[in-house]
Amino acid sequence: MTQNKSQMDFYPTRMRRNSKIIPRTDSVVYGESFVSLSEDNAKFFEKNGYLIFENLFSENEIKSLFDELKKISLDESKKDSPQFILEETDKEVRSIFEIHKQSKMYGGLCRDRRVLDVARQLLGSQVYIHQSRVNLKPGFDGKEFYWHSDFETWHSEDGMPSMRALSCSISLTDNFEFNGPLMVIPGSHKQFVSCSGKTPKKHYQQSLKRQEVGTPDKEILEAMVREGGIVTAKGKAGSAIFFDCNIMHGSNGNITPYPRSNAFFVYNSVKNKLTDPFCGLPPRPDYIASHDFTPLEPVKNFLVSQR
Amino acid sequence: MTQNKSQMDFYPTRMRRNSKIIPRTDSVVYGESFVSLSEDNAKFFEKNGYLIFENLFSENEIKSLFDELKKISLDESKKDSPQFILEETDKEVRSIFEIHKQSKMYGGLCRDRRVLDVARQLLGSQVYIHQSRVNLKPGFDGKEFYWHSDFETWHSEDGMPSMRALSCSISLTDNFEFNGPLMVIPGSHKQFVSCSGKTPKKHYQQSLKRQEVGTPDKEILEAMVREGGIVTAKGKAGSAIFFDCNIMHGSNGNITPYPRSNAFFVYNSVKNKLTDPFCGLPPRPDYIASHDFTPLEPVKNFLVSQR
Repeated sequence: MTQNKSQMDFYPTRMRRNSKIIPRTDSVVYGESFVSLSEDNAKFFEKNGYLIFENLFSENEIKSLFDELKKISLDESKKDSPQFILEETDKEVRSIFEIHKQSKMYGGLCRDRRVLDVARQLLGSQVYIHQSRVNLKPGFDGKEFYWHSDFETWHSEDGMPSMRALSCSISLTDNFEFNGPLMVIPGSHKQFVSCSGKTPKKHYQQSLKRQEVGTPDKEILEAMVREGGIVTAKGKAGSAIFFDCNIMHGSNGNITPYPRSNAFFVYNSVKNKLTDPFCGLPPRPDYIASHDFTPLEPVKNFLVSQR
Repeated sequence: MTQNKSQMDFYPTRMRRNSKIIPRTDSVVYGESFVSLSEDNAKFFEKNGYLIFENLFSENEIKSLFDELKKISLDESKKDSPQFILEETDKEVRSIFEIHKQSKMYGGLCRDRRVLDVARQLLGSQVYIHQSRVNLKPGFDGKEFYWHSDFETWHSEDGMPSMRALSCSISLTDNFEFNGPLMVIPGSHKQFVSCSGKTPKKHYQQSLKRQEVGTPDKEILEAMVREGGIVTAKGKAGSAIFFDCNIMHGSNGNITPYPRSNAFFVYNSVKNKLTDPFCGLPPRPDYIASHDFTPLEPVKNFLVSQR
C-alpha cells in the first residue's frame, strides 16, 4: 500500500482515493514533567492542539530580530540562493528558509529556552529543527493559504514517520483579526485526514505558494469546524503560538496595509527521525526538510548568547 | 476637465493622473431631527462614516429572508436575466441585483422603518433605491474585494453628483472576524480620493468581480489607516451596518466553511438624482444604477406588509 519499504505507514495518504479520516494513534503530549509551561498549558495543548503565549519576547527583542531580517533581506549576494523565496512581481524577499542557519541571531532564537524548552517538554525528548523560515507577508496583497495539516506533507513528502513534531510561530508584527492571521481548528489534530490525489514531482516548488494536493475535502473541513470551531492567532508582536504538527490550519488573504511577518520553527523529536518519503518520490531539499538530526542545545537568551 | 456637460464636477476622478485627495465639501449627516436613531448615533455616523445595529432583525425574520432567497435562487427561469450573477465554476447564484424588485419580501425589507427611517433621517430627505442586491458569498473560496469608495464609482460611472447617499448591509449569516466581513476605515469618508486611470467601456462587467480602476494608491490607504484604523463589521445574522457612500471599505477573502450572505441597499437622496456619468461613457444598466427616483414609502414591518 505504501511506497516506503523501510517503515510501516500508519498514515497512508495521497493514494488517489477520496479524503478519509484515520484516527491518530500517536500521543500529542509526550512529556511527563513541565517546567517552562504549566500542567494546564500541557492539558490545553493535548486537547486543542495549540498554545498561545502573549508577550513571550520583548519589544526590544522583536526590534533586533526585525533589524537582522532587514539586513539579510538586503544582502544581494544571498538572493539567488534557493533558501530565498522572492515575490514574482517585485523580487522582494517573501520567505527565507533555514533562517536559523542564515543568521546567528535566529539560530539563537530557536534555541532560546522560552521556546525550545516548551518544544522539548511537549515532545518529551531532545529535538532538532526540521524546518525553519521567516515569512514576510506583505500588506495589500497577501495571499491566502488553504487548510492543511503540516504532518500530512511532512509524512508524505519528507518521510516523517510519526506525529511527534510541533511548530512555533513567533510574531514579528502585530497579528490583527484582519491581516490574515493563522487560523487553527481546535481538536482537529486528533484525526489524520488521508487526502486524495497523488504527489506531483518537485511538488514543493509549487505547494509552498499554493497547496492543492494534500488538502482535505470540504465535507471533512465542515465537520471539523462544526466540532471545534476556528481560533485566530491574534496578538501583539512578540507573541508565540505553538501548534501540533497535525492540526488543521490556514490563513485568509490580507488586503490591509498591515504586513504580517513571523519566524517559524518546526521542532521534531530526535526519536522521530526522517525515513524515506512515504509518497515514493525523492525527499525535498534539506533546506525545507532537514536531515541534520543534531539535538538543539538550549541558550538562556538569544540576544545575549550570540555576542 | 470633466466630461459631464450638464453638471459641475466637484469630485473629478480617473483623469489618468495619480491618486490625490480632495476634501469632502458635502455634509455627512443632512437630517436635523432623529427618531429612529439617537443624536449620539448621528454624531458617530458623522465622525466615523458608519453605524452598526446589532439584532435589528429577529431570527425568524432572517429565516424568512433566507427561505425567500433559496426559492428565488432555484428559479431556473430567472437565471438567464442579467440581474443574476452566477459563479463561473458551478453556476450557483452569487449575487442577485434589484432584489427589491425581484421579491416582494425584499421590496418590503428596504422600506421597513427600521432601515428606511435611518436612511431618511441621516440623508435629511426622501430617498430612493440607487442599487440593491443580495450577495451569497460562499465559504472555502470567497474572494477578497479591494479597498474602494462606492461614491467614486457612482459619481464617475453613474453620474451621482454629490455625497448624499448611504448603504445598508443586513447580515443574513453570522459575520465572524474570519469569514471575510466588511472592513471600513473610520473617518475616510471625509476625503475624496481622486483615482488614477481611465474608466474602460462596460467597466461594470468586470469591476463587480474585481475592481482595479477606481482604487486608491497604497500610500493614501496607509495614511488613512494610520489615521482611522480599521473596523470589521462582525455580528450575528440580523445585524445591520449603515455606511456612508464615500467611506473606504473592502473585504478579505474567506477560506472558512462559513458562507457570508447579506442584503445590500443603497439609499440615495431624491435631491441627489443621477445626471450624466462624469466619466463621459454611457450610464450603467438600470439594474445596477436605477433611474427610477420614486421616493420609498415606509412600511412598519416587512413581513406583515407583504401579506
